[in-house]
Amino acid sequence: MKSYLECIPCFFHQALRASRIATDDEKLHKQVLDELGALVSEMSLEITPPETGRLVYRKVMEVTGNPDPFRELKRESTREAFARYSAVKAEIEGSDDKLFTAIRYAIAGNIIDFGPTGSFDIDATLEQVKHQDLAISDYPAFRDRLSAVSRVLYIGDNAGETVFDRLLIEVLGKEVTYVVRDSPIINDATAEDAVEAGLDEVATIVSSGSDAPGTILRLCSEDFRRRLDESEFTLAKGQGNYESLSGDSHEIFFLLKAKCSIIAADLGVAQGDVVLKGINL
Amino acid sequence: MKSYLECIPCFFHQALRASRIATDDEKLHKQVLDELGALVSEMSLEITPPETGRLVYRKVMEVTGNPDPFRELKRESTREAFARYSAVKAEIEGSDDKLFTAIRYAIAGNIIDFGPTGSFDIDATLEQVKHQDLAISDYPAFRDRLSAVSRVLYIGDNAGETVFDRLLIEVLGKEVTYVVRDSPIINDATAEDAVEAGLDEVATIVSSGSDAPGTILRLCSEDFRRRLDESEFTLAKGQGNYESLSGDSHEIFFLLKAKCSIIAADLGVAQGDVVLKGINL
Repeated sequence: MKSYLECIPCFFHQALRASRIATDDEKLHKQVLDELGALVSEMSLEITPPETGRLVYRKVMEVTGNPDPFRELKRESTREAFARYSAVKAEIEGSDDKLFTAIRYAIAGNIIDFGPTGSFDIDATLEQVKHQDLAISDYPAFRDRLSAVSRVLYIGDNAGETVFDRLLIEVLGKEVTYVVRDSPIINDATAEDAVEAGLDEVATIVSSGSDAPGTILRLCSEDFRRRLDESEFTLAKGQGNYESLSGDSHEIFFLLKAKCSIIAADLGVAQGDVVLKGINL
Repeated sequence: MKSYLECIPCFFHQALRASRIATDDEKLHKQVLDELGALVSEMSLEITPPETGRLVYRKVMEVTGNPDPFRELKRESTREAFARYSAVKAEIEGSDDKLFTAIRYAIAGNIIDFGPTGSFDIDATLEQVKHQDLAISDYPAFRDRLSAVSRVLYIGDNAGETVFDRLLIEVLGKEVTYVVRDSPIINDATAEDAVEAGLDEVATIVSSGSDAPGTILRLCSEDFRRRLDESEFTLAKGQGNYESLSGDSHEIFFLLKAKCSIIAADLGVAQGDVVLKGINL
């Protein structure tokens, strides 16, 4: 997915919020915005938002001198998600279609995001799961394809959301490889965050080889690209992965909540809608 | 009122919206944002938002080659406001306190703004007037001061809102000088817009001498500054006038709707609140 002009003001919002999380020094907040201003002319609409997002958040880290502004917020998100683990597990186990229910909770977990929105209500979102239909549902294809494979490549998104990914992985009953970002970017899950969510107990954790808040293949490691090429079944969580992989030629199932109006428009759904969309099926 | 860091992303939003109104050429929209990016380091937090806003909207006009992007929208706003003139006039005439009711409608008219918000619902706002209390009300002082003077300096804000200003002026029963922007900026009222609202029938229309979307005294004409110095009673409408005059030493009554969170915080009210606030009383 290409970028839109609306992404530019949004990146300024995001950079300001991230700067304030990274440091209390207001001079540095302004300096981040100043330096971002100088980058606007380089923000091509032909590249995907996560590619620009990577530059924006690296700028925040560089100017504030904080290499991982979201460290504590990520840890807190994981703790908060874990506090709901048993209740959601019971909901899934007690449902008629465990796979579908687990998918819906995994999508709900995608609300935990400090990027485009910056604020969220986990409990309200988990409650909403029970009655919100998927605006796009390729579930029948998802279920059929899944039944024919033994291994799943699961491209993660945010810390905390990882706990809901774990619940889905427990239902999948497959040999899962869970892909994380190579180093900190926004609140995206790294290997450390995945381990904190106990994903090492249910999957093999591997890095995408990139610090982009999405999966930009030319920035990923050769190892990850080989895994994607060889994957029998690929699932990708969240906006960043959708934005960077929606034009890809692999068969991929995207599970996400359309948190911004631009992505919602790209998907042809309303902002806030939840989506299970397969490409190249 | 000084500027806040939040104003910077907001100016990018506003510039994008104004650019799209000014031209259909997407390359020019991007060029506006690019050139605005280069201006960020000059956006001092020590100057008021209307001063930066002036630079932003002038950039839009310069890059798009459109000297008055809001011309048609302003005319439409005036027509839409006029369509409600008789009904509001009857409401005012039928009320127990005509002055207070007219003030409330004049504040409601301030919702007509293509700057910070970009969308509004006149009818919903006029309906709201009937039950929304003023979050700050210096009405007793306003009424008392007004009763002692024969002339009023009325600093206008937006086109369309002008019609509601006219309704208030008709109730004031004073010799009114109505101040407009010297040339087009956003949808702020110029002399042409004021005449379209028939303000020339109830007041003497004069220019502030400046094209700022507010009243920045050092950019105003000597004639206007003299009028302000000599004024017995000054009333200023809207956010832009509040932002630029709230730190001034004249006695001024501000009538506005706090449309953005930053101004609401500055005033100590909630976003959306309506305010009649006097300074230097």
